[in-house]
Amino acid sequence: MGEATLSVTFTPSGRRGRVPAGSTALEAGRMLGVDIDSVCGGRGLCGRCQITLGSQPGLPAEPGRLSPPGDLETSYRGRRPLPEGSRLSCAARLLADAVIDVPPRSQVRQQVVRKRPETANFNLNPVARLYYVEVEEPSMIRQASDLTRLREALRAQWDLPDLETDPAVLQNLQEALRAGKWTATVSVHYGRLITGVWPGFHDRALGAAFDVGSTTVAGHLCDLSTGEILASEGIMNPQIRFGEDLMSRISYVMMNEDGAARLTETITAALDELVGVLTAAAGAERADVLEITLVGNPIMHHLVLGIDPRRLGEAPFALATDRAVNDRAERAGIAVHPGARLYALPCVAGHVGADAAGAVLSEAPHRSPTTQLLVDVGTNAEIVLGDRERLLAASSPTGPAFEGAEISSGQRASPGAIERVRVDRETLEPRFKVIDVDPWSDEEGFADAVRSTGVTGICGSGIIEAVAELALAGAVSADGRILEREHPRLGKEGRTPFYLLYDGPARIAVTQTDVRAVQLAKAALYAGIRLLMDRLGVEQVDDIRLAGAFGSHIDPLYAMALGMIPDCDPARVKAAGNAAGTGAIMTLLSADARREIEETAARMEKVETAVEPRFQEHFVQAMAIPHRTAPYPHLSRALDISGIPAAAADRPQRRRARRPAPEEKVAAAAGAGTGGAL
Amino acid sequence: MGEATLSVTFTPSGRRGRVPAGSTALEAGRMLGVDIDSVCGGRGLCGRCQITLGSQPGLPAEPGRLSPPGDLETSYRGRRPLPEGSRLSCAARLLADAVIDVPPRSQVRQQVVRKRPETANFNLNPVARLYYVEVEEPSMIRQASDLTRLREALRAQWDLPDLETDPAVLQNLQEALRAGKWTATVSVHYGRLITGVWPGFHDRALGAAFDVGSTTVAGHLCDLSTGEILASEGIMNPQIRFGEDLMSRISYVMMNEDGAARLTETITAALDELVGVLTAAAGAERADVLEITLVGNPIMHHLVLGIDPRRLGEAPFALATDRAVNDRAERAGIAVHPGARLYALPCVAGHVGADAAGAVLSEAPHRSPTTQLLVDVGTNAEIVLGDRERLLAASSPTGPAFEGAEISSGQRASPGAIERVRVDRETLEPRFKVIDVDPWSDEEGFADAVRSTGVTGICGSGIIEAVAELALAGAVSADGRILEREHPRLGKEGRTPFYLLYDGPARIAVTQTDVRAVQLAKAALYAGIRLLMDRLGVEQVDDIRLAGAFGSHIDPLYAMALGMIPDCDPARVKAAGNAAGTGAIMTLLSADARREIEETAARMEKVETAVEPRFQEHFVQAMAIPHRTAPYPHLSRALDISGIPAAAADRPQRRRARRPAPEEKVAAAAGAGTGGAL
Repeated sequence: MGEATLSVTFTPSGRRGRVPAGSTALEAGRMLGVDIDSVCGGRGLCGRCQITLGSQPGLPAEPGRLSPPGDLETSYRGRRPLPEGSRLSCAARLLADAVIDVPPRSQVRQQVVRKRPETANFNLNPVARLYYVEVEEPSMIRQASDLTRLREALRAQWDLPDLETDPAVLQNLQEALRAGKWTATVSVHYGRLITGVWPGFHDRALGAAFDVGSTTVAGHLCDLSTGEILASEGIMNPQIRFGEDLMSRISYVMMNEDGAARLTETITAALDELVGVLTAAAGAERADVLEITLVGNPIMHHLVLGIDPRRLGEAPFALATDRAVNDRAERAGIAVHPGARLYALPCVAGHVGADAAGAVLSEAPHRSPTTQLLVDVGTNAEIVLGDRERLLAASSPTGPAFEGAEISSGQRASPGAIERVRVDRETLEPRFKVIDVDPWSDEEGFADAVRSTGVTGICGSGIIEAVAELALAGAVSADGRILEREHPRLGKEGRTPFYLLYDGPARIAVTQTDVRAVQLAKAALYAGIRLLMDRLGVEQVDDIRLAGAFGSHIDPLYAMALGMIPDCDPARVKAAGNAAGTGAIMTLLSADARREIEETAARMEKVETAVEPRFQEHFVQAMAIPHRTAPYPHLSRALDISGIPAAAADRPQRRRARRPAPEEKVAAAAGAGTGGAL
Repeated sequence: MGEATLSVTFTPSGRRGRVPAGSTALEAGRMLGVDIDSVCGGRGLCGRCQITLGSQPGLPAEPGRLSPPGDLETSYRGRRPLPEGSRLSCAARLLADAVIDVPPRSQVRQQVVRKRPETANFNLNPVARLYYVEVEEPSMIRQASDLTRLREALRAQWDLPDLETDPAVLQNLQEALRAGKWTATVSVHYGRLITGVWPGFHDRALGAAFDVGSTTVAGHLCDLSTGEILASEGIMNPQIRFGEDLMSRISYVMMNEDGAARLTETITAALDELVGVLTAAAGAERADVLEITLVGNPIMHHLVLGIDPRRLGEAPFALATDRAVNDRAERAGIAVHPGARLYALPCVAGHVGADAAGAVLSEAPHRSPTTQLLVDVGTNAEIVLGDRERLLAASSPTGPAFEGAEISSGQRASPGAIERVRVDRETLEPRFKVIDVDPWSDEEGFADAVRSTGVTGICGSGIIEAVAELALAGAVSADGRILEREHPRLGKEGRTPFYLLYDGPARIAVTQTDVRAVQLAKAALYAGIRLLMDRLGVEQVDDIRLAGAFGSHIDPLYAMALGMIPDCDPARVKAAGNAAGTGAIMTLLSADARREIEETAARMEKVETAVEPRFQEHFVQAMAIPHRTAPYPHLSRALDISGIPAAAADRPQRRRARRPAPEEKVAAAAGAGTGGAL
């Protein structure tokens, strides 16, 4: 007589088979190849292996199909509460044929569902995982070392053979095993390297993702086992005291012998500080952080890694490396767990950084069946164009106009800045909206509401809308000249015409010089995009993703009206939020994501705009406002040329000051008003 | 018509075949699978690929078979002079059928022939190798990073695909490539990891091997490409200020919270200092050192690696790890090349350290067809016994008597110490020899010669010979009692009998307490050896290797006469010199040696003497002098019981003070008077 067996079906995987009666659900899962999550290996400690009884025709969810909860479950008080109806699969034994449902949170490689429906989901599959083991005690008879017995336990209890060991682990191994009375939790990186050991059961593996920008640094603290974002914080990049923009920092490096080293120290100290802020916010310890990932433009990327960036400041702008960098976190001077690893996403080209790689990972043009354009505008615009077959990347020297710099009344996107502008087609009278002030300038209550911030200047999105509106109203000609006629809003300062937008305590005008700066910036961006379209052999793009702060603030219709981006269905132009930071988070949570971006970055075709003769042609052609050199059918349909439709005017609305939810802080940390992580 | 081909034979490999006429000898070698050494890849820079024209019947060594020396060879002024008749194989082209002789120094994996004929040779096959490459210049068209183009060059020019890169390399990669005008030399570890890059051609790859003892630390600087030992130096272990012996250092660790950290700092600072001394002695730079290897007893091994050794001071004496440790040298605080690696040989058991593993590698009992006993005596004796089939290891608590400690007139083996002793069988009158004094005490000129050192005490070899001689002369009984009768040399201090060895300014006696201490020590050693013989099932050993200072000073006949070691043909009892340090050097020069000792250490059977009841039995039996519990046929034949043969009396003779050759310094550094490295 054989052993009595039962039929079990697991959902949602659909795996089914016969297992010995009395098996635990966890054992049954393993027999049938269903990966149920567990750190403690079936000892009722971690609570990760929860399942519920499912049903199918003829097989209802009767509790009697499983053994009644015993001491292990009734006394379970771990970090993951056991809701009514949920069972620990390591404790519940099969007494009859049953359907076992494994909820997403109990699945190994559970899918992380992203908030933005247009983006791809990914599997939770962090490179650092925890394993609880019971280790044989040492004996004078056998004389095997602590490490040898630990490795034996990992092989026997977790089927992890031939692991290597970070030498740092040896430094606390002996005390950890003794403090845990010969039980320990081990962190394993990439399934092959032991990087940490804790006494007894330890269920906290965190990671930090950094998006290092020239101006701001955003950090996100994540739980590697659940994928949850525990804290997001942003700080100013303290390198600003060595120069506002990237080129002035490169100059500092060139003019000071220890310049690169000082810039590296400054930014790594900031990352170290940010880890402290993040862990404090989440009530965690620095030593809980086992993994760090990093995106940034090439210069920030190199500086964090201790690489002198001077070669990025001169032609041919050679990167030290365009591969992903794996290092120990401690070499970067960041105080986290001594075995923690740092992963920097690959830079793509001299002006297309790991931030662009992160944005690609997040927005996934490399998986797209349609042609996707991904644009991240800073002092350089990083442009990626393509689809799942072919992907091109370039950067274009837009200059700082889109960030509100080099504009006569320009300022950063902060309270007091004009962010939206409308100009009456007949009277040329303006109305505008100020950041953090709800009413528009012509609405009731504006004067009161604006008192706290004042109207202090115009930010990037404001100047774009202003120039586009003036062009639509005829106050700016197609070739960018401000109309010169008698009108209370029009005037000249010396020989420079201007349009007076606001005549309050501050006088805010759009000058001819401002219009020229916007023209140059938008022509550079468009020419770069157009060049990639030529290379790809397409005349239109199907989807556009506008990344970063720029992408969150700009109204796509105005971007089209100004001729910054090619014509596209407005419904398919999306703000991508802090896509670069999201990419960093994805590589924190998923080894698959790392492989994906490494392969994608390697096959991206780099186009250097500076050496392409066609770029200059496109650039000259793209100076005109509104853009007339290519048809804009979507724009024409969406935009009633006699006025902007109400829907568009209402669209991107800045949120009021209130306590932001974590996912908003992510975006806020990177300077993006909306968007949210993941 | 096919291309014209020629017949070529390479010696000593014997490989032969046809190659296109006009091929260089280096190309011909590669085509026929003959590995000719080269760093520069055939560019006439490194001079490593030298060959000579050989001959065979019908194929004389006529110079015309090779193209005449051109500019490359006549102008060659590299580090390796080109002797008359030698050719650079990268320049010499084949004009006719020829025999090409590849001398050992031009062979990849050349065999290192050791000075001691009883030891095994090994292949020069260091884990760090240099490769010269020409790297494509960067361009704005292609935009491949410096690292990517370097890796492409390594793949194309050296067939090294898929190399990983130490992140530290990125920090000087860009400047190195530019300083070398797009030529560079790269160090690759284990054939898979880029660890360094130098501008242009660089032909210096050094390594340092350390033998870290409780008392002394020996260091050897080697050229990894030639195997040459460039410098050997020894220093005192500065940890001595925390305790003379190992147990007092463990006590320091247990009684001071930062004790382990301080001991680690102290020893790693000493290693760092020793690197400075070694590189200065060899006229080299610290940054030339690409590899460090390490042996030491378990406590020293753990302390160098930053592991708290307290668990080695209490039962069950568990090691943190018994595997080889690979780490970055910089983590151990040793300032060498930033990409340098540190390799610590495996410890075998709680009292059998990486020093024993190094000695095994050097003396190769694991390859021996006969039974070999390898003994290294310190405060603990490390004992290895076996053959190529089976290898056993144990340690035995001999105490410090063999080092001259805990002996009434004992001292270290230094000038002024009595090192050899003879006692007249009739008169009981002694004669003795003092370290660094040529005449024996009864020879002409002794009084003059001894004036500079004095006679200050008796060292380990002296006390062993004294007790053995006294026993042979009947002044000490078989059970170890000093004869009590009227004699000018015999007396009593209180109730303790003694034998007066020297009655000069210092009074040097062998007391009953001294004899007991020697009995205890030798019984412990013999009992440990005997226990392993039981386990192995042998009644005799074929070969004995006495390692370390002890082994170099002791006369094997007296060791047998005293019953320290089992009976053995005296011709097959050899001093192994600093075998542990030699093992460290071998792992520096040979990846094969690393694999060999890792595999061997893993299969060694550990025997813990403290838990073996038989050990106590053997110990009690082994107390008798001379040893009577087992037959000693070889000893009986070699030793005329009425006196020691002259040959034996003359045998191990300490060299006079003179400038030692490097291989002697190796031994001296470890406290061994003779022996020499390798």
